[in-house]
Order: sequence, then structure tokens, then C-alpha cells
Amino acid sequence: MIVLHHCVSARSLRPLWMLEELGLPYELRMLPFPPRVHARPYLDLNPLGTVPLLEDGATRMTESAAMCQYLAARHSPDGLDVQADEPAFGAYLNWLHMSDATLTFPQTLVLRYTHFEPPERLQPQVAADYARWFLARLRAVDVAVQKDEHLCAGRFTAADVAVGYALVLARHLGLDAQFPPAVAAYWQRLQARPAFQRALRVEREAALDQQVDPTPSPDLRL
Amino acid sequence: MIVLHHCVSARSLRPLWMLEELGLPYELRMLPFPPRVHARPYLDLNPLGTVPLLEDGATRMTESAAMCQYLAARHSPDGLDVQADEPAFGAYLNWLHMSDATLTFPQTLVLRYTHFEPPERLQPQVAADYARWFLARLRAVDVAVQKDEHLCAGRFTAADVAVGYALVLARHLGLDAQFPPAVAAYWQRLQARPAFQRALRVEREAALDQQVDPTPSPDLRL
Repeated sequence: MIVLHHCVSARSLRPLWMLEELGLPYELRMLPFPPRVHARPYLDLNPLGTVPLLEDGATRMTESAAMCQYLAARHSPDGLDVQADEPAFGAYLNWLHMSDATLTFPQTLVLRYTHFEPPERLQPQVAADYARWFLARLRAVDVAVQKDEHLCAGRFTAADVAVGYALVLARHLGLDAQFPPAVAAYWQRLQARPAFQRALRVEREAALDQQVDPTPSPDLRL
Repeated sequence: MIVLHHCVSARSLRPLWMLEELGLPYELRMLPFPPRVHARPYLDLNPLGTVPLLEDGATRMTESAAMCQYLAARHSPDGLDVQADEPAFGAYLNWLHMSDATLTFPQTLVLRYTHFEPPERLQPQVAADYARWFLARLRAVDVAVQKDEHLCAGRFTAADVAVGYALVLARHLGLDAQFPPAVAAYWQRLQARPAFQRALRVEREAALDQQVDPTPSPDLRL
């Protein structure tokens, strides 16, 4: 049984959404934010204290975009995954990596230096630098979804889930007001997916069941 | 013919090193740093203006860790790549993603806010926050290389190249003085690889041939 450790609205929404797309059985363990402060025993499982952690037999993973590819390759090789011999293979890998390294990390700076730090450590200049940086890189998504309904391969793949989370985070930060029209339409299509809606519902129910605050805390790897 | 667009010491060292590991033919095009200022026609090829760009037929990639996996999967499926049915598949993907999103991006903040910004925009607090952040995450590498010579799968893979670049960048920033002993020894082993040394030599010769300053400018996606 796959076990996913998750905080509300964290990057772990990526593998949660993937699990719902794939219809796989899994156990969802909710953690209060930040777990390294409020859930000390979690450090025995993941010494970095970061979320997500995905356990699948002997496999332990901590990178949410990697989990998307892992789950797709193992459980949906010809569907949500793109194979090495397909023409879109390079684009697929590029989107998976871009989703986190280029489209999520800059937003965590906005979050940290406008919300999470104590007042004397807030850094409006840095938050503005990386909001601009994120929006500049979002042009790549804009170009892609002007041409096609999905990012690559002419079908919905794990890359759409991975990039989709960057748009979830942008919404939490209010950066969605600056989405170009094609990105805004793509974001609407992603939100309409039944598996995305199930993931949000499962997250909320699990938080209430496990007595964790269900309020979004967008990022946890600061 | 694969074409790689590169700036000295940039993340594009990852695919350059991979190409040397694989012994593939390729063309290396050197760019002055930053290309969006000093090589405006490059924006026609890559509107983001970032380095690297890898062209392979119709495939265009901009994420260096994704390029490592792409080249490995296409040209060395049973060697530098780790297949979906191998037990180490999840760990392999995790290292590839961690190499950039978790181990490189924080270092670009150190670089930006100690070196690249004009004096009034330097941010010593942010640089210190992310130097500490990087070193905390480096514990994952430390744990892995205490157990084995390589990061995963019991052999040298594209994951070692991808993480290796994060150590190259740490050396440029002087953070290598804080490597734990097992990481320092791993870093020595990586530097001793003939393909790594060839990549550095090819980079320098190409810079001189193409009249680009061969001095390292560690990161280019700021």
C-alpha cells in the first residue's frame, strides 16, 4: 500500500492528485504545518522534515514532481506517462522538472518573505523579484497551452499535474490575477478534472478526520 | 546532431558532462553571460533567455536535470539511466529532481544576493537563509554516499551527474568548505571522472574558440 504524508495545500497535492487520476489505493497521513515543529516523530521517517514523503514498499521519495513521473511510469506507462521512444519524451521531462525547479521554487520565496517570516525578516524586494521571475517563466506554459489543450504529447499527462500544482500555489498567492488568458483557461480545465476535485475533497476529509487544521498552508519546503 | 547552448559553469555543464559520459557527437555553442543581455539573437531560439538549451531534432529542452535523464534514457537505458522496473527507479527520479529544485535553486539565491545584484540590492540575510537551507538538504546526499559509492542503483547514473553539478556550484560559492566528509569524498570521486575533466576542457576550449570569456559565471537562471 502506498503511503503519502501530506500537509494541506503543500506540494504533496501533486502525488495526491496523481493517485486520484490513477485510481490507486493509498493511505493519506496528514501532518500539521510545519511538521518539523509540530510533528517531531515524522523526522524519524524523513530526517529533512519536508513534505511530501511517499512510501511504496522499500521506495522513499521526497520530491513531488518525481513522484508524479514515478507513479505514471509504474501504473500508466501509455497514458499519464510519456515513454522514452515517444517524440514528446524530452518535452515531458522538461515540464516535470520545470514544474518545481522553475515554477514552484520562486513562489516559495514570495510566500516566505511576505507571510512566514517574522515582521523584521520580511523582504518585500525579494518577494517582488521572484513574483516577477515566476511570471516571466510562466510564458513557457502560455506558449504551450495556446497551441494545445495539454502541455505535451497531445494528451493529459503527469506533466499537467506537476505544472498544475504551480498554478494552485499561484492562486494561493494571488498571482493568478496575472495569468495570461490561455493560462487562465488551462487552469480552469485542470480544476474541472474530477480527480483534482476528489483530491481536494479527500485532503479536507482526511484533515478533519486526523484533527489537522484544514486551512491551506501553501508551501512547506521553505 | 545534438546542439547544446552553454555559458561557462552554468547548469548546462550537466548535459555537457552527460554527453561526454555517453561519448555522443554534439555541437557546443558558447554564449556570453547573461545571454539575454549580450546575445540578443539567442532569444529567438529560447524566448526565456535562459541557459541551457538543448536541441535534438524537434526536441527543445531548457531544464538541465531533465536533459540528464533524457540523454541517459535515449542512449544508455541499462547504464546511466535507471529503468521503471528497477528497484532504484524511485530513488533515481528523486535524485534527479532534488539536484535542481532542492540543491541548486537555493544556491542561486546566494549567488544573486551576494554577487550579481547592485550594492543597494544585495541581501545578506537571504543569502545566509539559503546557504543554510542548501546545507541542511545536503544531509540527504551525505546519508546516501555514506552507504554507497554512488547515489542509487549501485552504479554511476545520470543522477550523479545532476547532483554533481550542485556540488560544482557549491565550490564556486565557497560552500564546499562545509561539506561533510562523505560528501567531500564523493565530490573528489566525481571530479576524478575522465568525462567530467573532458567536459571542463571542452568548455574552456570552446569559450576561447568562440571568443567568450572562459571565467566561470556559476549560474544563469537568476
